[in-house]
Amino acid sequence: MNTHTVKAFDNDIGELRGLISQMGGLAEDAIDKAMQALQRNDIALAEQVRAADKQIDMIEAEVERLAVRIIALRAPMAVDLREVVAALKIAGVVERIGDYAKNIAKRVPMIDGEHRIEPISILPAMGRMASEMVHDVLDAFAKRDSAEAVRVVESDAALDDFYDSIFRTLVTYMVENPKTISQVAHLLFVAKNLERIGDHATNVAEMVYFAATGTQMTDRDRGGLQE
Amino acid sequence: MNTHTVKAFDNDIGELRGLISQMGGLAEDAIDKAMQALQRNDIALAEQVRAADKQIDMIEAEVERLAVRIIALRAPMAVDLREVVAALKIAGVVERIGDYAKNIAKRVPMIDGEHRIEPISILPAMGRMASEMVHDVLDAFAKRDSAEAVRVVESDAALDDFYDSIFRTLVTYMVENPKTISQVAHLLFVAKNLERIGDHATNVAEMVYFAATGTQMTDRDRGGLQE
Repeated sequence: MNTHTVKAFDNDIGELRGLISQMGGLAEDAIDKAMQALQRNDIALAEQVRAADKQIDMIEAEVERLAVRIIALRAPMAVDLREVVAALKIAGVVERIGDYAKNIAKRVPMIDGEHRIEPISILPAMGRMASEMVHDVLDAFAKRDSAEAVRVVESDAALDDFYDSIFRTLVTYMVENPKTISQVAHLLFVAKNLERIGDHATNVAEMVYFAATGTQMTDRDRGGLQE
Repeated sequence: MNTHTVKAFDNDIGELRGLISQMGGLAEDAIDKAMQALQRNDIALAEQVRAADKQIDMIEAEVERLAVRIIALRAPMAVDLREVVAALKIAGVVERIGDYAKNIAKRVPMIDGEHRIEPISILPAMGRMASEMVHDVLDAFAKRDSAEAVRVVESDAALDDFYDSIFRTLVTYMVENPKTISQVAHLLFVAKNLERIGDHATNVAEMVYFAATGTQMTDRDRGGLQE
């Protein structure tokens, strides 16, 4: 590429990165707000999360158009192409994360605001862990920081353990309070959505690692903790 | 494009379509086998579904490489570019569908094979509905059939109703048989996975429609049934 093309490519990539940071911020925010809405039974806030998800979807579409344009016009090679494809895929995963936050928000109006069930109080800590993973992995992407990407993957094991513990707590609560079963079932889905957010943050971390290093993250990189 | 380029592009697109058909067939098969494994408590079959998911992931990666190569080398415009981008996105969604089937398969070993719970028998019909939607939407893609895509979107309402009814049945069963709660919770997740498969088939149907017609599917096209 000549100097002009290189500069144009750098601008394009900068724009792509900016859009993904924006998506990531919105997704993180969506998780936090969805969990707040759940805690406070705040239907209006839940509705806000659902509306914000449309914005995430729109930015994803914009990333896609831009990535296709970059590939078609600039014909990037090797490391540059790897970065554009990574951006395209990461945008897809962040959109999925936004969907999980939206799914949590959708449950808020289904939960009885009058008779709050006690186990709802154990979920926010899990929500914070998930939203931190999303924050950290997008930070790793912005800084091309493969070591931070590895840390995100490692932290997913803790989120999975948390989920298993919450699952057991919720089922025990259902057994002891059969009248609350349909309410607690919603919380089971919320916990599952948070666990899936962690899985997706892990996927992004693996993509960030690959884009930064050109090699796949191995078990050795992540302390041999994952499958 | 000159005749040579057009022919090369047609070959590329043909290859892309072939890969997606292959992925779709594997995903449909994964749903059917996961549901069979669940019914018969067949751990070996469940393991097979998990192994086959790796194959789906590999084909998705192949679609991605091919799509990027087509965009970079052939610089397709308008309807051709729309088709390549649709293929890329559809591959991503079919991969998600494969993940849901894998998630169902993962639950098989967690379900008690000795004391089979009765409501497990209501799930296969829902599984068939979901796998038919996947079959039909890939058929619509292969034939560029926008009318069939609309039918798939319409059938999602029936799947959603089925899910709601199963959800109520499972919760009632939990209330009446508190000892089975942790078992039935797995079935709730299975039903939810099938419902999400339907949502994703709907997404693919909308992409097929857009690729075929160049316009977004409207409420009018789908009989005004959807949101």
